[in-house]
Amino acid sequence: NMGSMRILIKGGKVVNDDFTQEADVYIENGIIQQVGKELMIPGGAKVIDASGKLVLPGGIDTSVHLQESFMNAAIQDDFYSGTKVHTRARTQTHVKHCSLLDAYEKSRALADAKACCDYALHVGVTWWGPKVHNEMETLVREHGVNSFQMYMAYKDMMMLKDSELYQVLQTCKDIGAIARVHAENGELVAESQKEALDLGISGPEGIEISRPEELESEATHRAVTIANRARCPIYLVNVSSASAGDMIAAAKMQGKVVHAETTVAHAVLNGSQYYHQDWAHAAAHVIAPPLRIDPDTPAYLMGLLGKYVLITGISRIQIALGKDDFTKIPHGVAGVQDRMSVIWERGVVTGKMDENRFVAVTSSNAAKIYNLYPRKGRIIPGADADVVVWDPDATRTISVSTQVQGGDFNLYEGMRCHGVPLVTISRGRLVCENGVFMCAEGSGKFYPQRTFPDFLYKKMVQREKVCLNIGVVFLSKGFTGNSLVSGKDTNAPLRCTVSS
Amino acid sequence: NMGSMRILIKGGKVVNDDFTQEADVYIENGIIQQVGKELMIPGGAKVIDASGKLVLPGGIDTSVHLQESFMNAAIQDDFYSGTKVHTRARTQTHVKHCSLLDAYEKSRALADAKACCDYALHVGVTWWGPKVHNEMETLVREHGVNSFQMYMAYKDMMMLKDSELYQVLQTCKDIGAIARVHAENGELVAESQKEALDLGISGPEGIEISRPEELESEATHRAVTIANRARCPIYLVNVSSASAGDMIAAAKMQGKVVHAETTVAHAVLNGSQYYHQDWAHAAAHVIAPPLRIDPDTPAYLMGLLGKYVLITGISRIQIALGKDDFTKIPHGVAGVQDRMSVIWERGVVTGKMDENRFVAVTSSNAAKIYNLYPRKGRIIPGADADVVVWDPDATRTISVSTQVQGGDFNLYEGMRCHGVPLVTISRGRLVCENGVFMCAEGSGKFYPQRTFPDFLYKKMVQREKVCLNIGVVFLSKGFTGNSLVSGKDTNAPLRCTVSS
Amino acid sequence: NMGSMRILIKGGKVVNDDFTQEADVYIENGIIQQVGKELMIPGGAKVIDASGKLVLPGGIDTSVHLQESFMNAAIQDDFYSGTKVHTRARTQTHVKHCSLLDAYEKSRALADAKACCDYALHVGVTWWGPKVHNEMETLVREHGVNSFQMYMAYKDMMMLKDSELYQVLQTCKDIGAIARVHAENGELVAESQKEALDLGISGPEGIEISRPEELESEATHRAVTIANRARCPIYLVNVSSASAGDMIAAAKMQGKVVHAETTVAHAVLNGSQYYHQDWAHAAAHVIAPPLRIDPDTPAYLMGLLGKYVLITGISRIQIALGKDDFTKIPHGVAGVQDRMSVIWERGVVTGKMDENRFVAVTSSNAAKIYNLYPRKGRIIPGADADVVVWDPDATRTISVSTQVQGGDFNLYEGMRCHGVPLVTISRGRLVCENGVFMCAEGSGKFYPQRTFPDFLYKKMVQREKVCLNIGVVFLSKGFTGNSLVSGKDTNAPLRCTVSS
Amino acid sequence: NMGSMRILIKGGKVVNDDFTQEADVYIENGIIQQVGKELMIPGGAKVIDASGKLVLPGGIDTSVHLQESFMNAAIQDDFYSGTKVHTRARTQTHVKHCSLLDAYEKSRALADAKACCDYALHVGVTWWGPKVHNEMETLVREHGVNSFQMYMAYKDMMMLKDSELYQVLQTCKDIGAIARVHAENGELVAESQKEALDLGISGPEGIEISRPEELESEATHRAVTIANRARCPIYLVNVSSASAGDMIAAAKMQGKVVHAETTVAHAVLNGSQYYHQDWAHAAAHVIAPPLRIDPDTPAYLMGLLGKYVLITGISRIQIALGKDDFTKIPHGVAGVQDRMSVIWERGVVTGKMDENRFVAVTSSNAAKIYNLYPRKGRIIPGADADVVVWDPDATRTISVSTQVQGGDFNLYEGMRCHGVPLVTISRGRLVCENGVFMCAEGSGKFYPQRTFPDFLYKKMVQREKVCLNIGVVFLSKGFTGNSLVSGKDTNAPLRCTVSS
Repeated sequence: NMGSMRILIKGGKVVNDDFTQEADVYIENGIIQQVGKELMIPGGAKVIDASGKLVLPGGIDTSVHLQESFMNAAIQDDFYSGTKVHTRARTQTHVKHCSLLDAYEKSRALADAKACCDYALHVGVTWWGPKVHNEMETLVREHGVNSFQMYMAYKDMMMLKDSELYQVLQTCKDIGAIARVHAENGELVAESQKEALDLGISGPEGIEISRPEELESEATHRAVTIANRARCPIYLVNVSSASAGDMIAAAKMQGKVVHAETTVAHAVLNGSQYYHQDWAHAAAHVIAPPLRIDPDTPAYLMGLLGKYVLITGISRIQIALGKDDFTKIPHGVAGVQDRMSVIWERGVVTGKMDENRFVAVTSSNAAKIYNLYPRKGRIIPGADADVVVWDPDATRTISVSTQVQGGDFNLYEGMRCHGVPLVTISRGRLVCENGVFMCAEGSGKFYPQRTFPDFLYKKMVQREKVCLNIGVVFLSKGFTGNSLVSGKDTNAPLRCTVSS
Repeated sequence: NMGSMRILIKGGKVVNDDFTQEADVYIENGIIQQVGKELMIPGGAKVIDASGKLVLPGGIDTSVHLQESFMNAAIQDDFYSGTKVHTRARTQTHVKHCSLLDAYEKSRALADAKACCDYALHVGVTWWGPKVHNEMETLVREHGVNSFQMYMAYKDMMMLKDSELYQVLQTCKDIGAIARVHAENGELVAESQKEALDLGISGPEGIEISRPEELESEATHRAVTIANRARCPIYLVNVSSASAGDMIAAAKMQGKVVHAETTVAHAVLNGSQYYHQDWAHAAAHVIAPPLRIDPDTPAYLMGLLGKYVLITGISRIQIALGKDDFTKIPHGVAGVQDRMSVIWERGVVTGKMDENRFVAVTSSNAAKIYNLYPRKGRIIPGADADVVVWDPDATRTISVSTQVQGGDFNLYEGMRCHGVPLVTISRGRLVCENGVFMCAEGSGKFYPQRTFPDFLYKKMVQREKVCLNIGVVFLSKGFTGNSLVSGKDTNAPLRCTVSS
Repeated sequence: NMGSMRILIKGGKVVNDDFTQEADVYIENGIIQQVGKELMIPGGAKVIDASGKLVLPGGIDTSVHLQESFMNAAIQDDFYSGTKVHTRARTQTHVKHCSLLDAYEKSRALADAKACCDYALHVGVTWWGPKVHNEMETLVREHGVNSFQMYMAYKDMMMLKDSELYQVLQTCKDIGAIARVHAENGELVAESQKEALDLGISGPEGIEISRPEELESEATHRAVTIANRARCPIYLVNVSSASAGDMIAAAKMQGKVVHAETTVAHAVLNGSQYYHQDWAHAAAHVIAPPLRIDPDTPAYLMGLLGKYVLITGISRIQIALGKDDFTKIPHGVAGVQDRMSVIWERGVVTGKMDENRFVAVTSSNAAKIYNLYPRKGRIIPGADADVVVWDPDATRTISVSTQVQGGDFNLYEGMRCHGVPLVTISRGRLVCENGVFMCAEGSGKFYPQRTFPDFLYKKMVQREKVCLNIGVVFLSKGFTGNSLVSGKDTNAPLRCTVSS
Repeated sequence: NMGSMRILIKGGKVVNDDFTQEADVYIENGIIQQVGKELMIPGGAKVIDASGKLVLPGGIDTSVHLQESFMNAAIQDDFYSGTKVHTRARTQTHVKHCSLLDAYEKSRALADAKACCDYALHVGVTWWGPKVHNEMETLVREHGVNSFQMYMAYKDMMMLKDSELYQVLQTCKDIGAIARVHAENGELVAESQKEALDLGISGPEGIEISRPEELESEATHRAVTIANRARCPIYLVNVSSASAGDMIAAAKMQGKVVHAETTVAHAVLNGSQYYHQDWAHAAAHVIAPPLRIDPDTPAYLMGLLGKYVLITGISRIQIALGKDDFTKIPHGVAGVQDRMSVIWERGVVTGKMDENRFVAVTSSNAAKIYNLYPRKGRIIPGADADVVVWDPDATRTISVSTQVQGGDFNLYEGMRCHGVPLVTISRGRLVCENGVFMCAEGSGKFYPQRTFPDFLYKKMVQREKVCLNIGVVFLSKGFTGNSLVSGKDTNAPLRCTVSS
């Protein structure tokens, strides 16, 4: 079968996130078996000539939304059409005030039947109570879920209050889960939406007007603070603005365990799109937080990708509802297929990042965060054979007319990109070669996830240990100034945060 | 009578916030009549020799809490004992879910009978609804109130949600009132209090443990953001930490109309006090936000006083309740009387500010903010005769045994200060000379306040006008990029914030 | 004579830097005699109706270059034509490796014969040695000079090395002079000029290419550091970029005594001017540091004017030499006359500053820095009668065809400004009314200056005193950690810098 | 022989800079042959039991000073005693105004005879001229040198002027060398030394007094600026202060290619050592820049090691000269042997970094910067067998009485550290086991280095390419605003710096 195919990628340059080497790559049984020169391999392997090409770990999308119901919109791509352009996807399931477990089961059933790449599930935590706490534990322990998504926006829908978010984050920390947080001040977004609608602004530009940048950076700051109080690593999604990006960079500099992703759309496009005269064009760019009106923002975010601040995710939903009320246009923008080419063009070609950092932002870092590394995100013997053969010099022009993903609109229409994927291999199977996709519906499967990723938790656990020791001293011997305070921000025993 | 006393202050150096000059000051009818050399004055004036001394505008306390009920504690100083050490006081009235007007009337009745200096009233806005909106308007229009105080902490007591705070600030802006905001994340303070009590921490150190610095700077950032959305000037009270101070400095640098005060206690003392073995000593330092454990914080805050970032207020309550539960210890620290000496010692003597900036932080800036300037806060002909003759070289040692203010505890016990007030004149009356206080109960009176202080509102009103113009263009002609966006932060018409 | 003219300005609003009041202003003998309502004045005064108008202190230009030889160019305006549009000017004299005293005398002779407003002189210190040190002392003590100008650029011409600048600043501190510093890295400017010329870039765009922003902010940082080491207040001139402005703001926040001015040209125009096809147009914009290519910079600098970071100076020279070599085009741009209107339009009308801050940046702060306050820079009884009656609502269009200043080019050609000066009074004389200038050649005179302005030196002197005390303790008792170090930046005895 | 020894390290956890895995490591012929579980290996290998232990890449010291003449002091350790505690060293050769090639040859001769670990050489560039330029090229092309060291301090000895440094950096860029820069303002250090000596301060505390933190951060800022102008990657050595560290972090955030190292001494000790009553103790801590008096600095620097800002180098020289003049005490502190234990204790145990970051800061990053990666700095098949077996739980107390390195003083005397190296393997040879060192004089050899390390140059080269393209457009078509300026900092053609 396809899984047992033998593949030899010959003559390319293997690019990992730390260095590039000239090496051949031999794949068998879905696993990378050898990486090196003059390999000894069995006969009968399909040989892919990669001379002058790069061999990259397959991209990992952390935030694909497929075939789910979000804001009452059915998503255009079902699990088949959506996953066929991926080597690996994570998708998401949300529920409002009902059982997380039920939601999980429903999503699994839908996905297992259709997915053609492996997938994992985030589960949205959109309300709070002991039942939610218990279901989070169950999902982690018994169902291979290791990440949850929380919202500080979407008031009266999915938004959590600060005290609820704090308790969810404490739970995440206890069970070693990844806490994904969407940061916008939902209370003030709601006020602004009301005001905009009252002023007669009902078109897509309303998204840009009612969700200003400062409400994102406010919430980002708050999220980081709450996570620090809960001593929980945090992963912010959909970072859309320079000020929110700066906030995250500052938190990292303070030693906090904060990671964040932006979307390709935010790192390439700006909010003038919402003022396009064609409603459908404007509506296709609706995402939250919105694309920013400041024309310098995309390049700034792309710069942050190059500087250890952000990694890339992607978010999509694009059925155009909400004709008369921008608040009802579903959030999310299309663009799965072109993600890597666009980042290559705007990030690598411009000198904002090198090819190794490109691998980090599109693959390795996500693998580390989601505890998949180095089985995913790295080309080494023993790793899953998720590989892309990449031509850095070829160019192509992005167009809706040639796209594989669903939909009749492409955000990057007409953009000429250097960097073209020639061959895509997923778990050892050729899923795309020369632009032809080959994958069977249902051939992907759910991938249970491990908790307590080292990348997020190793430092946190050590700090907790230090704090406990300090706490004991503190409680038993009384306050002793110097021994407690090793920096500006320490707080013990509750106060103890060994952060800098 | 005392009011018509004629006073000549001879030979001193008159210090205003912009310069110092050698000049005599002649006072009559409660008003400064002349400032200069070789004045022509009528006979019979009391002559005060100020050779080698400074002549300063009387200090203005913006946050005195006197004889009110706050957190179920009666305040030690009633309006008589509390006001006799002031040349001018503002006090506060709070109510929980009842009529603001009733609260105002009650406070007026108490105060008018006793106060021996003039006073004004802040009214606390601790819940929200159309009735509150209307009463705010009435208080401003008919009762001479021009400032309101809001809380982001004290969950389930006085805390407002973000959307409520936003609407209160919009109301303040519409009526030209001063919006005072106490910034701490009340949701997370409540969580931390629970945790501390669960851990058996019930003493005064609990205040320090459960209200960490990061919850203050988080809320400060949020408050500034909400005010900017409401286009309302904001005045933050009780700034207690370096990080909150930095937040305010950053907001000012972004062109936002943000002012803030710290208390003398925060600028002089640190949180090690809460770990004092004597419960009463520790409890006497309870204030929210708490004194900070970081020993560098007080000097940092004193530095911010010298750098156009903060001014000084003062807050006091000191009946020690809450023996078994730190959350029930009333917040506020004593220290009205010694305020000016302590700031002189730690601010002027150390070179962090000069004598002119000293006048700014203790008097002129408060007068500007509360729309009293230059009748208060400046020594010029026509101003109210609130004057202090100050000996910059004399020293005294602060002690509870010699204090005039109520209570049997002094925060600065044993502190040796340069800078001694020799004579205090309030509205032309000698209220203190050589340490002897002379004032009659009930001789002070309520001072109705004017709205729309230029110092806060002039720029804001102009910006609003610019935004409206832009908004009109925007709505009528569609989006035209450049003309709209003059900087990074602009948002129009809702978006328009002409801030930088 | 004109000096004894009596003038009553009736019905206007008097604007000082701290507040605005409705008041009449009575002038006699060149002095403001009374400010208030219902004044008692002698008969025969000329009455100026200022109803609906503002009455402002006359603007003070700190950096006018008139009739001097700078970079081998004669300046277009002589002392007569240049000073007639001022109420007060400071001009500058430079010499290369020759006597400072000789240069001073020469400038005095030229100026005294022609000037029609009062003037003062900066003396450039462009080399270093014991002779220079002595002449600086003599100029200060015997000739009424209180400011010197130093250059970190103009290698092999006027540039001082770091050790030389350090010693000049120590000298300034010892004699209480104002140290004006032009901050660009002269070594690297020279390298870039060479490279540009080698590339064949010889036009005015060379100024922009060879003096990039980072060389200004580098030198600004260095200048601030050197001044801090010398414990000398510093005044940076011609701040031209956002990053240099930020550097200054940061230094202020660290408690350093740093002041700075930008020019109106930098706060209004950008560097695209250098790419204008008309050489003369482009060359007219040559100034160092150059106008910046970043289109957001002017608004950013205007914002810093509104935020206590910068004040305005102005710099001009405009004979177009250097046709074949941009390094020989004299630096300086025209624009004396229109300065106030342009700042009003871009600063006050846009809401970046209010009318009081306008007075601060155009007049009061310069007066404070140069030790003229409150005799200059404030409208109060006793002050010099330098007054402008200002119509904030009138508009005019700036044009070379209507200008009084010399030259056939106007930087702001075609700019429509709100804010028109109706009447200008200098030392009690009407020098301009309704656009007609009236002043006699030679009627202005040299104005000797006092040293040790409080605004710069009061804090510094106090800090020095504190440091000395610490130093004594330090040297006599050995190192005692805590008592020494009150903040992060302290250094004693050499180390002692009580700054925060 | 030892080189062909077969070693199997069994049962440990292999720690690389990106992840940790349980794996055995098999070594033969000085090379790591296999890494994994259940390896197939030939018989006769020495088996090292690493159960419960970590297996780390050998530390790389980038700045060892051995047996050289620096400031007229002979260094205590010769190449034998100094290198026996290393798995790999880089050392340095300096000359003052004489041939770089001669200096190189002399150092080679000394080192080859004695070194017992492999070594490389930095060559100091302490003067400038065409001869130096040519010798730099020769050293790189023919002698395997790939790094040079420049000084902004040591006036009249090794200091380069800004224009000289600029040209050296341009040369480094052209030949692909690593530019190491020591950043302190040498002009002002010289002034301060003079002042200190004049004040009678001649002891080791003079180093601390005369080289204040601000002179380091000033020069750091300048160095970064000059490197950016030269478009050369830069590597700052001996970062000693929080403000210099922040400067570097800021430069990284601006997208500049800046790397930096601190020493273990700076990250652990503070400047109070200079005030120790024992002159020899104090003098043993003399290094430039000095240890900082601020007690929070070491923890701050250790924090920066954990945050992608710094890596560790080490610097030593310790013959105590300069009894009567601190300026003559040689700079450098001992501490080679204990480096890794100390960082483990203060960095990993405190939670400031995890074990993977520990590998990065002690090994991998230096290997990347110096173009040795992944042959050095990573445990993978094919890499050099430089391996340490590390017991993270064992503790030892550092003492001069048990040290192998030369000297009779240990900076960390009495410090109890977790983290003990059990076995050290260099190029496949056991050089230390259970505290016993085994290595033959002269067994190490010079290791020629490759230029243009990807880690530094890949982005720079790409940016240069982009700039060239822009430059061509620019020169041929004239200025076209938008296309040129993609961010705030761009400068083209000279101006072009594609950095953010």
